[in-house]
Order: sequence, then C-alpha cells, then structure tokens
Amino acid sequence: MIMRPSGRAPDQLRTVILETGVSRHAEGSCIAKFGDTHVLCTASVEEKVPPFLRNTGKGWVTAEYGMLPRSTHTRTDREAAKGKQSGRTHEIQRLIGRSLRSVTDLAAMGERQIKIDCDVLQADGGTRTASITGAFVALHLAFQRLVRLELLKAIPLTDHVAAISCGIYEGVAVLDLDYPEDSNAQADANFVMTGTGGIVEIQGTAEERPFSRTQFLELTDLAEAGIRQLVEAQKKALGLS
Amino acid sequence: MIMRPSGRAPDQLRTVILETGVSRHAEGSCIAKFGDTHVLCTASVEEKVPPFLRNTGKGWVTAEYGMLPRSTHTRTDREAAKGKQSGRTHEIQRLIGRSLRSVTDLAAMGERQIKIDCDVLQADGGTRTASITGAFVALHLAFQRLVRLELLKAIPLTDHVAAISCGIYEGVAVLDLDYPEDSNAQADANFVMTGTGGIVEIQGTAEERPFSRTQFLELTDLAEAGIRQLVEAQKKALGLS
Amino acid sequence: MIMRPSGRAPDQLRTVILETGVSRHAEGSCIAKFGDTHVLCTASVEEKVPPFLRNTGKGWVTAEYGMLPRSTHTRTDREAAKGKQSGRTHEIQRLIGRSLRSVTDLAAMGERQIKIDCDVLQADGGTRTASITGAFVALHLAFQRLVRLELLKAIPLTDHVAAISCGIYEGVAVLDLDYPEDSNAQADANFVMTGTGGIVEIQGTAEERPFSRTQFLELTDLAEAGIRQLVEAQKKALGLS
Amino acid sequence: MIMRPSGRAPDQLRTVILETGVSRHAEGSCIAKFGDTHVLCTASVEEKVPPFLRNTGKGWVTAEYGMLPRSTHTRTDREAAKGKQSGRTHEIQRLIGRSLRSVTDLAAMGERQIKIDCDVLQADGGTRTASITGAFVALHLAFQRLVRLELLKAIPLTDHVAAISCGIYEGVAVLDLDYPEDSNAQADANFVMTGTGGIVEIQGTAEERPFSRTQFLELTDLAEAGIRQLVEAQKKALGLS
Amino acid sequence: MIMRPSGRAPDQLRTVILETGVSRHAEGSCIAKFGDTHVLCTASVEEKVPPFLRNTGKGWVTAEYGMLPRSTHTRTDREAAKGKQSGRTHEIQRLIGRSLRSVTDLAAMGERQIKIDCDVLQADGGTRTASITGAFVALHLAFQRLVRLELLKAIPLTDHVAAISCGIYEGVAVLDLDYPEDSNAQADANFVMTGTGGIVEIQGTAEERPFSRTQFLELTDLAEAGIRQLVEAQKKALGLS
Amino acid sequence: MIMRPSGRAPDQLRTVILETGVSRHAEGSCIAKFGDTHVLCTASVEEKVPPFLRNTGKGWVTAEYGMLPRSTHTRTDREAAKGKQSGRTHEIQRLIGRSLRSVTDLAAMGERQIKIDCDVLQADGGTRTASITGAFVALHLAFQRLVRLELLKAIPLTDHVAAISCGIYEGVAVLDLDYPEDSNAQADANFVMTGTGGIVEIQGTAEERPFSRTQFLELTDLAEAGIRQLVEAQKKALGLS
Repeated sequence: MIMRPSGRAPDQLRTVILETGVSRHAEGSCIAKFGDTHVLCTASVEEKVPPFLRNTGKGWVTAEYGMLPRSTHTRTDREAAKGKQSGRTHEIQRLIGRSLRSVTDLAAMGERQIKIDCDVLQADGGTRTASITGAFVALHLAFQRLVRLELLKAIPLTDHVAAISCGIYEGVAVLDLDYPEDSNAQADANFVMTGTGGIVEIQGTAEERPFSRTQFLELTDLAEAGIRQLVEAQKKALGLS
Repeated sequence: MIMRPSGRAPDQLRTVILETGVSRHAEGSCIAKFGDTHVLCTASVEEKVPPFLRNTGKGWVTAEYGMLPRSTHTRTDREAAKGKQSGRTHEIQRLIGRSLRSVTDLAAMGERQIKIDCDVLQADGGTRTASITGAFVALHLAFQRLVRLELLKAIPLTDHVAAISCGIYEGVAVLDLDYPEDSNAQADANFVMTGTGGIVEIQGTAEERPFSRTQFLELTDLAEAGIRQLVEAQKKALGLS
Repeated sequence: MIMRPSGRAPDQLRTVILETGVSRHAEGSCIAKFGDTHVLCTASVEEKVPPFLRNTGKGWVTAEYGMLPRSTHTRTDREAAKGKQSGRTHEIQRLIGRSLRSVTDLAAMGERQIKIDCDVLQADGGTRTASITGAFVALHLAFQRLVRLELLKAIPLTDHVAAISCGIYEGVAVLDLDYPEDSNAQADANFVMTGTGGIVEIQGTAEERPFSRTQFLELTDLAEAGIRQLVEAQKKALGLS
Repeated sequence: MIMRPSGRAPDQLRTVILETGVSRHAEGSCIAKFGDTHVLCTASVEEKVPPFLRNTGKGWVTAEYGMLPRSTHTRTDREAAKGKQSGRTHEIQRLIGRSLRSVTDLAAMGERQIKIDCDVLQADGGTRTASITGAFVALHLAFQRLVRLELLKAIPLTDHVAAISCGIYEGVAVLDLDYPEDSNAQADANFVMTGTGGIVEIQGTAEERPFSRTQFLELTDLAEAGIRQLVEAQKKALGLS
Repeated sequence: MIMRPSGRAPDQLRTVILETGVSRHAEGSCIAKFGDTHVLCTASVEEKVPPFLRNTGKGWVTAEYGMLPRSTHTRTDREAAKGKQSGRTHEIQRLIGRSLRSVTDLAAMGERQIKIDCDVLQADGGTRTASITGAFVALHLAFQRLVRLELLKAIPLTDHVAAISCGIYEGVAVLDLDYPEDSNAQADANFVMTGTGGIVEIQGTAEERPFSRTQFLELTDLAEAGIRQLVEAQKKALGLS
Repeated sequence: MIMRPSGRAPDQLRTVILETGVSRHAEGSCIAKFGDTHVLCTASVEEKVPPFLRNTGKGWVTAEYGMLPRSTHTRTDREAAKGKQSGRTHEIQRLIGRSLRSVTDLAAMGERQIKIDCDVLQADGGTRTASITGAFVALHLAFQRLVRLELLKAIPLTDHVAAISCGIYEGVAVLDLDYPEDSNAQADANFVMTGTGGIVEIQGTAEERPFSRTQFLELTDLAEAGIRQLVEAQKKALGLS
C-alpha cells in the first residue's frame, strides 16, 4: 500500500473548510480551504447583462480567476503587470463559469449578472476545484440576498455543483491531489458534478503516460464519493442542513 | 431512431481525408479533412529549444492554433487584429501540444523544437480533433525527414495519437459531431487516445443539462471505435500500412 | 541575356490560377495562385457600415491580410500570438482596401460593408499583388450573389482592378518577381491598375541603389502588359469572357 | 466639534492589527489591517537582481500593488483582464518601493532582490498607507529569515518606515481617513516617515479647494503622532519590543 | 556657501519664458521655458464631456504629458512604440490635470472639455513644473477665445496656478532644480500653488536619506517665493498686468 | 488656369526653412518647415546595433515618426495613450528609414546605429516629405560630429536624399500639396530622390479616380524640379554651398 505524502487514505479528502461572510462589500463571499489551498470567492451582483442578453429577460453568471503572486511556492509573475492572462487562467475561469451556469436557471434570475471572482490566496494543488466549490457558496449567498431584498421570489439554482480532482499517484487512484502529488501524478482528472450526481464536466489528462479505461473508472468512483462530501459541506456552510 | 442532420449512423465518422505534402516549405504538412472541417497542419523544425530545456539534451513539441476569419459560418474577428488570442484558442493549442508530447520521446528527439501550426481553413465542428489527428501526421513526416537527413536514427514517437468528439444529440450518443449537432448537443466530449487504446485526454462538458455516468460510458465506447479508424487513416497517409 | 532563376522570359508572368468557390461559408471566395504563391481571398458581406458612414446610404469595402506562420521559407511568428500586426501587414491591407475601393461605386452598393480577407497559405514573392488580384474576384462574386438575391440591381463595380510587381534583377527589368528574384532585386515596384489601364497605385522602391526615370518607365511598360493578362484571367474566372 | 463618521477623535487611528506569518510560502508575510482596510503583504526573496545592479554587490527592494476586484464597495475591473495597470496602481507601487528602500542598506543586503506584493483584500480608505506599514513588517521578516539561514550577518535595515494619511474633513484636521471621510475631504495627505521621525515622502493634495500652510502643519503634527503608534505596532508584531 | 552648477543663488529661478500663440491650430498654446527645459503646452476645446459628466451641465479639464524621445540627454524609448505609457507619465499627467481643475469653475465652463497636451521638447529638470505653469497659460488662452466667441460670459478660472520644484542640494535648500542638481539632490519636492498662496499639491521625496521637518519648511518658503514670480510671468504673458 | 488655395504657381514649393542645431542634446537636429508644416528631426547615435548586425562591422540607420496630438487641425489621439502606433505611422517611419539608408554607406559608418526621430510639431500637409528632407540634415550633422570626434574618417553618405509630394488638383499637376489641396486632390504622389536625380521611392495613389501614365509623368517632372531646390536648401543649411 502506498503512503501519500500527507498520510491520507487514497479516498480521503483534505480538511475542507467553507467560511462564509468574509468580505464586507461583496453580495456573497466564501473562503474555500482544501487543506493548504485557500481561495477567496466573491459574488458581485450587477443590474445589467452582457450585450448578447439585453432585452431577453435572462441573466448571466460569469467568473474570473487569479492567483496572488506569492500564493505559489516560488513567486509567480503578476498577470496585471505582464499585461495578459495566461492560457491556464482563461481555461480555469471559463470552467468555473460553465460549472455555475449548469445549475443556474438563467431565465429565473432576471436580467442581471453575477460576477464571481476566485482569487487564490495560497496554493497547494486543486485551486480550480476549491474555486468551483467555494464559488457555488458565494453565488448561493448572493441569491439569498436578492431573495431577502425581494428582488427574486426564489433562489434560481436547480442543484448544487462542486468539483474535486483525482489522479493516479504511484500507480494508485487517489482523491484530492495536493501539490506534491499533483506534480508527480501519472494522470490527473478534475470532475465537476451536481448534488444529484450528474456530471457537468470531466477533464482527464495523462501526464506521464496514457491511462486505461479501467483506471479512469476508478477515478470516477473516487470523485463521486468526494463530491458527496463537498456538497454536504456546502449545505452546512449555507445553513441548509 | 434519430436522424442525424447529415444522415449518418450514430457511430459513423464523417469522411476523413488526410492529405500530406501540402506545403512547399514546411518540414511536414497535412490537411486534415473531417467532412467540411478542413485544417492545415504544418510542422516546423527549429534547432533550438525553449530556455527551460537548454543543455538538457531534450527536445520539445509545441502547437499553435488559429482560425481564418471566414472559416466560420459568419466572419469571426481576426485575433491578430484584436491583439490577443481568445481563451478558446489558448485552450485548444495547449491541448494539441500536450497530446503530441504524450507520444513523443522528448529525450530521443534531441535538443530541438518542433512547432506545429494548425490553421482552420474551413470549420464545421470538430476543429480541435481534426487538428490533433492531422498534427500527428505532420509531426511524423517531420521526424521522417530528420531520419532521412540522418539527424535522427529512428522516429522518436512511441505510438499514434488521434482525437475525436462525441456527444448526446437528441438523447442519443453519436460520434464525430458536425456543426449543426454541436450547437444543439446536450453534452459533448473530446477524446484523445493513442493507437494502442490508452487515454491521453478526456474533456466532457454538459451543455444543456448534466449527463450520467452511463451516458459517459457510451460516449467512451463510440470514441474508442472512432479513434481506431482515425489511426488507420493516419497509417495509410503515412504509408505505414 | 540574363537567366531568371525560374527560367522565365523577362516579360513572363508565373502561371496564374484564380480558383473560385473555394470556401463553403464566404459570400465570395478565390484562391489566387501566382506560381508558388497561394493566397486565399474571401469576401464577407455585413449589413452594417463603420460609424463614419452610418445613415449616409453609402457602403464600404475594407481588407485584412495575414500570413500563415509556415507560409514562409522559415517559420514566421504568428501575429495573433505576438499581439500585434506588423507595419508591413498594415501597409498591405490598407493597399488592398484602397485598390478595391478605387473601382467600387460605394454609393451604389448600399449601406453595407464587404470585408475581404487575404490569407497567404504559401508565399514565394508577390503576395500583395496576388492578394489584390484575387480579392477583386472574391469581391465580384459577393456582388454577384447580392444581385442574385435581388439586394442589388447591378454589380457596383466600375472596372477591374489587378496588381503586379516588376523589378530590376541583374540589371534587367523583369515582370512578376518570385522570392529568389525579390530578395536580390536592385529595385522593385508594385503597380495596381484598372482594366482600362488607369493607374490606381504605384509603389517603387530602390533596394540596392537608386534607379533612373528610364528604368522606371520600363517597369511601367512591363506592368501594363502583365495587368492586361491578369484582367483576362479574372474575366475567365468570373465567367465574363 | 465635528463628529467623524466612525465616531473617532480627530487624532485617533483606526484599530491597527499587523498579523504575521499568514502565508505558507512567502519568506515574510503580514496582513495589515487599518480598521476595515485589509492588505496582504508578502516578501519574496530572489537570488538575482535587475540588470542595472548585476555585479555591483548591491541588492534591490521593489514592490507591486493590486486590489482584488471585490475589495471595493462596488466591483472594480480586474487589471489582469484589462491588460494594464492603472496610473494609480503604478503610482502606489512606486511609492511603496521608494519608501522601503529609504530604510534599507542595499549594499549590506547582498546581490539579491526582495519583491514585496501588497494585495488589498478589502478596502476602506488608506490602502497605500496600510501597504507600506505592513510591507515593512514582511520585509523585516524576510531579512530575519536570511539572518537565521546565515545568508546575512545582520538585518540590513537602518530604521523603521511606516505611513499614514491625514486630511481636512469638515474643516478639521483628522488622522487616518476611512473611505467615507476620504471621499468628502477638502484635502488629504499621505506621510511616509521613519521610526526616528525623518520624512521619507509627503504627498498632499487639495481636493475641493487649496489649503493653507497652517493647515498643512496641522496635518504634519497629526501624522507624526500617528506614525509613532504605527512603529510601536510594527515592533510588537516583530517581537522587537 | 555652495556653488550651484549653474552659478545661481539658492533662491534664484532659471530664466523663465512663457511664449504664447505658438501653435496654428490649438485654441490656446504656450511654450514654457525654465532655462533649458522647454515644454509645448496646447489646449484643445471639445464640445463634449466624458461619460460621467454627460447631462450634468459641468465641464472637464484633463491633461496628457509626453517627452519627445530625444528631449533627454540620452535618447528615451518612444512610449507609442513601446505600446504603453510609463508610471511616471501617468503620475505627471494626473498631477497636471488635478492642478488645473483646482482653479477651474467646472460648472461655469459649460458642458465641454479642454484637453491640455504638455509635450517636452527639451528636458533639463523640472518638466512637470514647467508643464503646469505653461498649461495654465494655454488653458487661460483657450477660455479667452471662448469668451471672444461669446460661448462663455467670463473666464471660469478662480485663480492662477503654477508649480516649482525645490530640493536639498549639498545640504542647502535650493529653488528650481535643473538636471545636474536633480540627479544629486538629497531630497526634492514639487509644489503646486495658486496665485493667492493656497497649496494645491505638495510632493516631497527623500532620495538619499530622510529629511527633517525644518528642512521641509525651508523648501516651502523657497517655493512660495518662486511661485509668486511664476504667477507674475503668467500675468505678463497673458497681458493681465 | 487654376488658383491654388495658397495662391502659389503649380510648380512652386512652399517657403522651405531648414533650421539646424535646435536640440541641446541630440547629436544632430533640424526643424524642417515646409510652409506651416513643421517637423523636429533629431539624430541619436548609439554605439550598438540591432541583433541581426552584431559583429558584422556594419551600422544601421532607422527612424521613428510621431505627431504631437495638437499638431493637427483638430486634436488627434496620442498614440502612446492608445497603446499602439497606427498603420500610417508605421508606413511613414519605414519610408524615412529606407530613404536614409539608400544614401548611407552602412559598412563605412561602423558598427553603430543612428536613430532619427521625426516629430511633427505642426501639420499642414506633406509631413512625410518634410520629415525625410529634414532627417537627412540631422543625419548629416550627426555624421559631421562623429568625424569631428575622429570616430569616423569621412561622412559615410553617398548622396543627398530629399522628398516632395505632388498631386493632381482640380485637374492640374501641382507641386508640394498643402492640407487644403491634399484633402481634395484627385491623386497624390510622394517622390524620394537623391541629389543626383536617382529615384529612391515613388508612391502614387489615386484618390478619386485612376490617373493616366501621362499625368504620372507630369508629376515626375514637377518632383524632379522640386527635389533640386530642396537639395540646394539642405546644402545651404549644412554649410556645403
């Protein structure tokens, strides 16, 4: 049996903390901590939509992602100073946006936009999955506020959405890779799933060598179990359980 | 039973043509046609590597992707004129590069770089899968040339790599989506696989609503069969069968 | 007597092919081949005009130009990746636009815009002249389509327009420089002329040393003869002769 | 007598908290809280210097500044997404760098660079003064670490440096403006001073109408007293008192 | 007693020349010469305001600043070619704009904008103070023109505004630093003041080591005397005295 | 007979003034005035060359061009603020560089670079021709200085170079178009020629309708006579006649 660097069992998540109400100004906010990975997620409500939705009665949810320069082991150059966002940043923020929209009833939310900002304060692997999991909480809180203000009758979310990574580390399928595992995994995969077990997004990548279909199914099993725990944590953070 | 807009059977690829030797200047070239999707793939050999590989004896394979402005149904703004590449472009070109590197022996290719350019001349869905499939052919041809010139002893490729999309269209799992299907699919997935059936990359996205694990397995079955045919086409184009 | 690298006579064009209907989506399209120089020209009709023409009843014709990275002998960096178009690109696309507008009745074409994209698939000298010559064909085809759709009564073109280069190579005036000549010419000039012999644009540049007025007149003679042949080729491609 | 929106006395700072050791990766870190203004300051040591200092034996200290998009009352566009840093950002980060260098013995720190990142997590006025005050703590901690690692013999800082704002609010000189005061002040000034009372930087700006020399001297008095308290807080946070 | 490189007394300005009417096209123009520092200041009237002022009846005054590449001792790269303005440029043009607005009655000037361009033709220290001093003259001239054209009843300026630098050079407080002094000063400060002695902006920076409050008061005394002379020069240039 | 707006005869230049020694810092400088068009030309000597010339023993001459925002009739946006240079700017600065290099012995000038900056202080048509004519003077002066400093044995210029525009205005060929003519010309052409009558560059453009070969020859005649006068003016300014 392998020993994970953190000593966790193969199917064990890191300690997950979803702390809400962390921003004085945002309409919804959450710091999502997956072990040493900490992401600040804020939701900002704007009473106007992008041009392609004007006068359709529909709303929009979008996301932006960033890493503080010293969230990483060695300092990463600031994207604002370089004057452009990396391909990786674009990839992740598009993924967060799609994930959230998959459980949002855009027609029911009215002609307004909610912008989610996911800023990584500290990184130790899995920043995109922590971002999605925390972003859902921030989004839910922003909708709660709109309901409280009687701008919406009900929260226009059809389900929960959360995300987790898995990978093949020293030949074994493991859940929720931290940085030391992530940098040495044979393959890793990110799963975005709903509270009722629907798959929203799967991204699997062989790093060292291709993986087999059987291995991929093992990862899927791990992910399903992991997502169930994350959804429980979301419910608790939101006072829904 | 559903009728696909093109009249194809659910497990039927579009007509695939891999035409080689299409560029007078490139060290390897291929136009990959998946039906009405046409991508020009060229391989350019450079006798120097990116800074992080200098003096390691290792080589590198990387890729860039672009669409001609009127490859699309209505004209798309030119990225060079806008002054930046879209998130989608970054996403695709990173995927092409990773896919090719997964079957390349970087140590065996020597301290040189091969840049693959995939330029979409005409788009009708599936440009990234046609790009990967054609890019492998262009890369192989460039390596053949290096062997002919006695700069390499053997072709430093460990396997074939090809890619195909599948999706759930009107509730049915179908192979190789064209544009009319792609814009109306409930879910779509791109599979990158090797000639021996290893999985290099899986990207599955729910468009309209989440999909189930069973549906995802159906897509995987379709993809495996499709990839086998694409690898055959590559072998034929390369004169290997 | 000099021997041109290609073996052509001083007043001999390369083989010129204007192939129409090459793009499934564009309203007009043409691949212009001047020997090994191949340019894909597409015309895209948009039912709106730039701000300075709104509500004037007038239309506009504009052009963009690009080279695929490996259209050239050694790979050229992708302008979209560099984030800006070179001075040369700006110069050429402005020239193409001016040339086309010189034979277009902007008032008669109605308040719409036609965007011409000239993308060089393979370069061997003379890409700007091939672009202009092919762009005219694509533009004409787009206007034919508007007439067929009864959106226009007649084709709002007052004449043909085509372009050719000439230069002084090893002391002799020659027509239609290819790359080996272009890189060693003492002087080169590009002529844009109409079907009836009017001059639209002349650009003459001494490369190695200044040229004389007499030499310049020789170049003009060559160009006039060359343009007549190109206009014939356009008529044939358009089914007008 | 005026009532400040916060109920503070004219010469009263907000509650100041300097929390150290907040980043797992940075060589020095501090969250500086001036009331509801929270800035995360990290120090990153790099064993190389900018080109102009190479082979001089001297080191360098520089700073970057950023605001999280929803640190502000309404969301501010992300500079990385806009592709450039604002004039205000440039102004502030240059000020932080100059302030820190004024108390650093660049020759004694050796040929290495320390980059300070000041990222505003939550803004309520005075982000630049909190940044400088916290940045000094992060810098000191990074130097402590270099001493512990025996890379330096002594901490190459000649004094403390801290910063505070003052302004004329409803005709009265007040210390440490918060956002409601800042947006309505007749004038405001930022003072950067050392632990021994030397002035490093003064920036005074009339917002509504010019101010007099007498008023400016009142602001200087307030600032001197405020800086003394901030330096005490720095000493306590650093375990120096 | 110190000898200033220029031989001036500590409280002596360089020769100041404010030459008006130097631009054929601008609504107001002035070349401000402070010794060998020459700045061309032009005022351009536009009959529309920035979005945030539309339909408020208020106007706006803004400024841009630039240096010709060879205004400096050694050539400075052209900001237009580099594709961005430096932090220093942003800092200075914001300062010029704030200074002018501090003496402009924005409500009285009507819903129009005046853009001031300050372009340094030759630099020898003090370009920002010469810019502000000359910009006021150009602005005044533009307002005179609007009055002559009966678009305004009176000149909507409440006072003069001018600027001067001082610094501590070889331990002595001196007025109006030229380049040799500026590069060797222990501290330097820029003062923007009105004709009636009000302070609009103070920027003091320690270069070598912190300065004391007493030293700062000496600089303030010098600046007040210097500004009085500059305001006299402005009046003379404008024919107001 | 036509009346030109300025009352000049068809073959009459505007008053041409070439004023040297106008910049305190530049190695060579000249303000070129063609009537109300004023261009400041400076030459900056740098003791290093672009990468493609390193260790070849050859030098390089290059040029940059800019317009002050209010050099024009109505204010033009500052290119530095927009973050990019226009196509027109690129076109002009490339033309200036080529023109100067056509008369420079790059091998004889040694491995150094001279950068010419042409900045338009006031524009009234013909800024590119004034730029070239003045740039030659600035370049010559910089070479004179290198000879005086004994860094060069002789001035490495093989001939003079100057430029002038002509055009067809109200059906008549006229020399040296000013702005009112330029905006209404049927055709205009710029000629760059050497002191001995060699043609360096010809750019002719039909604005309203194509022009004939005969008309073009008339323009050439005018240009030749104009260039002769400009070369005389250069000689006088340089003290060579």
